[in-house]
Amino acid sequence: MTIEAFDVVDLIRAKRDRNVLSMEQINWLIDAYTRGYVADEQMAAMTMAIFLNGMERREIRDLTLAMIASGETMDFSALSKRTTDKHSTGGVGDKITLPLAPLVASFGVAVPQLSGRGLGHTGGTLDKLESIPGWRASLSNAEFFEQLESVGAVISAAGSGLAPADGKLYALRDITGTVEAIPLIASSIMSKKIAEGTSALVLDVKFGSGAFLKDIEQSRELARTMVALGEDAGVATSALLTNMNVPLGLAIGNANEVRESVEVLAGGGPSDVRALTVALAREMLSLAGIVDVDVEGALDDGRAMDTWRAMIIAQGGDPDAALPAPRETQVVTAGRSGVLVEQQALPFGVAAWRLGAGRARKQDPVQHAAGIDLHAKPGDIVTEGQPLFTLSTDEPERFARALEALEAAYRIGQAGDEILTGGPLIVERIGS
Amino acid sequence: MTIEAFDVVDLIRAKRDRNVLSMEQINWLIDAYTRGYVADEQMAAMTMAIFLNGMERREIRDLTLAMIASGETMDFSALSKRTTDKHSTGGVGDKITLPLAPLVASFGVAVPQLSGRGLGHTGGTLDKLESIPGWRASLSNAEFFEQLESVGAVISAAGSGLAPADGKLYALRDITGTVEAIPLIASSIMSKKIAEGTSALVLDVKFGSGAFLKDIEQSRELARTMVALGEDAGVATSALLTNMNVPLGLAIGNANEVRESVEVLAGGGPSDVRALTVALAREMLSLAGIVDVDVEGALDDGRAMDTWRAMIIAQGGDPDAALPAPRETQVVTAGRSGVLVEQQALPFGVAAWRLGAGRARKQDPVQHAAGIDLHAKPGDIVTEGQPLFTLSTDEPERFARALEALEAAYRIGQAGDEILTGGPLIVERIGS
Repeated sequence: MTIEAFDVVDLIRAKRDRNVLSMEQINWLIDAYTRGYVADEQMAAMTMAIFLNGMERREIRDLTLAMIASGETMDFSALSKRTTDKHSTGGVGDKITLPLAPLVASFGVAVPQLSGRGLGHTGGTLDKLESIPGWRASLSNAEFFEQLESVGAVISAAGSGLAPADGKLYALRDITGTVEAIPLIASSIMSKKIAEGTSALVLDVKFGSGAFLKDIEQSRELARTMVALGEDAGVATSALLTNMNVPLGLAIGNANEVRESVEVLAGGGPSDVRALTVALAREMLSLAGIVDVDVEGALDDGRAMDTWRAMIIAQGGDPDAALPAPRETQVVTAGRSGVLVEQQALPFGVAAWRLGAGRARKQDPVQHAAGIDLHAKPGDIVTEGQPLFTLSTDEPERFARALEALEAAYRIGQAGDEILTGGPLIVERIGS
Repeated sequence: MTIEAFDVVDLIRAKRDRNVLSMEQINWLIDAYTRGYVADEQMAAMTMAIFLNGMERREIRDLTLAMIASGETMDFSALSKRTTDKHSTGGVGDKITLPLAPLVASFGVAVPQLSGRGLGHTGGTLDKLESIPGWRASLSNAEFFEQLESVGAVISAAGSGLAPADGKLYALRDITGTVEAIPLIASSIMSKKIAEGTSALVLDVKFGSGAFLKDIEQSRELARTMVALGEDAGVATSALLTNMNVPLGLAIGNANEVRESVEVLAGGGPSDVRALTVALAREMLSLAGIVDVDVEGALDDGRAMDTWRAMIIAQGGDPDAALPAPRETQVVTAGRSGVLVEQQALPFGVAAWRLGAGRARKQDPVQHAAGIDLHAKPGDIVTEGQPLFTLSTDEPERFARALEALEAAYRIGQAGDEILTGGPLIVERIGS
């Protein structure tokens, strides 16, 4: 690719003045930034200008393609199976990837799930799985392909070779207040997913207090933007817009989320976790051309569980080993009898993070046994003194700040009060 | 001053989301940036957010005060004279400081003119004066005060101790496309001028093709913002809004601008240069409490010239020495007879810069003899073959690109055609 030279200050000014950047300008910008020719402070001014002035669909597509071109791409065309993948924008108690990947793979498709670690109040799939003794996130390319062929499901760490421009740009956005810009979120997620080479992709785009984007309209716009990017790149893409005002399931943490996932794989588990897993599995299978199959049956008859066990074993894990237990727990009980009318996702996510389940900085470790187990969900009738939730940590000095986060996070009302869940779990499907 | 700690990302987000920053937040930001605790990329995102979302008058005042507090301030209270200063936002052929400082000082007030060097198409006062053999821009504090007391006028380089935060921030804005933001321009100019300790200040705020801000409305807003900042800081401040669509005077360069300034000091010179010098001198004297004096008389009877000579000699210069002459000149003549109806400031400034009179980077030298001498001004009747302007440089390979800049820069029309000067020279006075 021949790249014309531009003056980065001219490009910043153009976006600052609400002009549209050409494909050549965007290609040059991303290439020059990746090589270090455009400085971080120049890219920071550009991303703030993009945040405030936006980008057209064509610019977002060109930005996504330029980030893909900054690194390697994967190619699954040699596999005997079709590939189908899922991405969630992240939430509190969102362990859906764990039951979902083996469930979908149990229907004979390949699920190449490259996942990340958690940062802040949202958990990371790899952090959760690493609470399984022996399990390892890093696979060689050969191991990755071999496991996709034999087991069908792989959940592993993304290599740094995919869309390196995105890695550099995301780290910059994180410290410059430009994370929540739809063109930048969409191109960041989709550049990695398209570079991964999947032929189908389902997006779980969350809205609400525990989500990345609080506002449903913004989440809808993000979902539409990403579905369009996928379609432009030849990836069959759809999105579910899902509610993240309340924690998903009853477990928030790492080991406890694995435990809950295994319950779902055994045909049980909390109804919301099961429902979202099934809905996303149907979408993933449908985009891979598999319809009219009994998705729930695969949870109930052990097929999904068999694939889970094979997946964990293939990555060195022992699916029967005891999961780490916390050194200390503290139970919070109901102060009165009534109905639990509110349980806000964000403060529960922050509390689990403060207990040690999450990290503030990329390089920090997490505590696998830290987190929160909920004993009641909004709408449940509770009796004074009944346990509402249990906090777990290895460091009891963490309880105080976790409880602080939870002070106004839940409320017991009376029968007949409105249950504040912010609407149904799955609001809308976006895609063709 | 005790400074609360803030999270810079919170402050960037606040400005990004159109919130107002508190005085404590602004103080912390500027202090932390000056110390290197806030990174350049974070400040770049902040300045772009300020560019696009603006600042309230109170925020601009706090930003200005925070930049003043980042360094030293000067104090002229020990002087036996009142101080009065002038700042121009810069333009093509703007040598007004040269005749103005000695003219005003000849009335017994002190003019402590801390000036800069040129960058891009606008010239720098120090570059012009350095074409005088022996003259030096750098003075010790003691020399500066002594010259103010004895001669009254000093034009010297500003030390780096005044408002260092502004120096750092300006360099960042220059490479991140955030130069032309009114809150940032106003606080940059006024932080240095207030730190300099003058008790009165006249601002020459230019608009038009050769000015920093092209649009008269933006220039008016900048002037009003700066006058308010000066008044808030207890500095008697006013501004003249002046037209920079046409080069000022007949000389654009360095040595030739000194020559033209000396003509004005001798009672002659181009009428526009004389008129603007006199108007600014009246403002400066009036703010210093001196009214009903014969300003034009001081140009005509040699008083201003005496002060000029004393000022040049005090700084090591020889006012009688021959000024540098260019190695090569090229004369451009009228292609037809008619009336010169247009002469655009910006391309003439760019051409002079390309001839070597200006610099692209701070560290570059300038050619003292390079530049352009105009032989006709808009409205003048010209005859085919008559010289229109002369280009000068030490490096004849520079002629071609200079002439390129001038291709559409001037036009000969017919008697009765509109003369395109963009209106009168002095449009408006702003101040109480």
